[in-house]
Amino acid sequence: MSKNKVISDAVIKRLPRYYRMLKILENEGTVRVSSGSLADMLNITASQVRQDFSNFGEFGQQGYGYTVSSLKAEIAGILGLDKPHDMIIIGCGNIGTALAHYKGFTDDGFTVRAAFDVNPQVAAGLPEEVAFYTMDRLSEYVESHNVDIAIIATQKEVALSVAEQLKSIGVNRIWNFAPTDISLSDSELVVENINMSDSLFVLSYKIK
Amino acid sequence: MSKNKVISDAVIKRLPRYYRMLKILENEGTVRVSSGSLADMLNITASQVRQDFSNFGEFGQQGYGYTVSSLKAEIAGILGLDKPHDMIIIGCGNIGTALAHYKGFTDDGFTVRAAFDVNPQVAAGLPEEVAFYTMDRLSEYVESHNVDIAIIATQKEVALSVAEQLKSIGVNRIWNFAPTDISLSDSELVVENINMSDSLFVLSYKIK
Repeated sequence: MSKNKVISDAVIKRLPRYYRMLKILENEGTVRVSSGSLADMLNITASQVRQDFSNFGEFGQQGYGYTVSSLKAEIAGILGLDKPHDMIIIGCGNIGTALAHYKGFTDDGFTVRAAFDVNPQVAAGLPEEVAFYTMDRLSEYVESHNVDIAIIATQKEVALSVAEQLKSIGVNRIWNFAPTDISLSDSELVVENINMSDSLFVLSYKIK
Repeated sequence: MSKNKVISDAVIKRLPRYYRMLKILENEGTVRVSSGSLADMLNITASQVRQDFSNFGEFGQQGYGYTVSSLKAEIAGILGLDKPHDMIIIGCGNIGTALAHYKGFTDDGFTVRAAFDVNPQVAAGLPEEVAFYTMDRLSEYVESHNVDIAIIATQKEVALSVAEQLKSIGVNRIWNFAPTDISLSDSELVVENINMSDSLFVLSYKIK
């Protein structure tokens, strides 16, 4: 499978949707699926599906469709879901606490190990399996534990300085829930911003 | 301004980002901005910015840039942010409760008025200004209150049946946080799905 091609953001953003759909099909016991059926389920065209997959080599066979389990495994590999990821949460307000409890991504190997906040009282709201530390212990924690991804769930005013602090101690992968985009000029840093308002504004546009 | 053109999803998804950036510029007292500066701030090209705005008519003047306040007002109008939206939350688990407390979209006129759950004990976790009702009172509430948008924050197993129930009582605009895509075959229904795992998977892809 060629991995040297530059894959467009649009294709990459569809991969998680394929993956979720294939998981559902696998759970339902479906063995084989055509590009046409996948396309219908995702509300895109069959040629789009075939074109997307052609970016990563050949998954299927003309007129025969795709084997659900192997296509799912291939896409999991492309997405890096074939290995576990340890995560920490910075900021235990409502969003941070909700994420500490959220179980929607644990099946795919993403586990929240620890949560940090300046206020030790927020620890009471966390689930038992997530260790709590005050912010001054962040560097110490990172030195002695594996951290694949840091989730920033702070107020927007401090999000950027938290990102800079994380970078300075070697945590370069950030999932940002603070209501501001983090874009540090550093090619070593990988940030995915979740801006919930953006999605709400798109909904607002659609209902006009 | 022509509104009869079909605007692509990609353009619509960039509008909230322009809007947020213009809000920041306005707060900072910036009066005028060029397509080049906007492009730099959003990490896209200047020609992309000009092309996006050309979908909606002419906002700027060649070599003169855009007036921040009027461009922001134009985009707010396109996004439907020039009028208030009343929202309700269905499902008061961690995500639903976090959304009830979240203040990131109130500035733009989106207000959570009420929250519903089968379990009355979850009411204790809600902020004072959000009214709580048990699920059996949903129809009654919708009959006597304005509801622009329903937020679904239930378990994935019941999300679809909640969407169907909402549709049957005339609530056709759904912001879905349940970890499953809602796609009812009904052109009257407008759904924006937030699937947090998708964003996490994109991050996972990028850090491979």
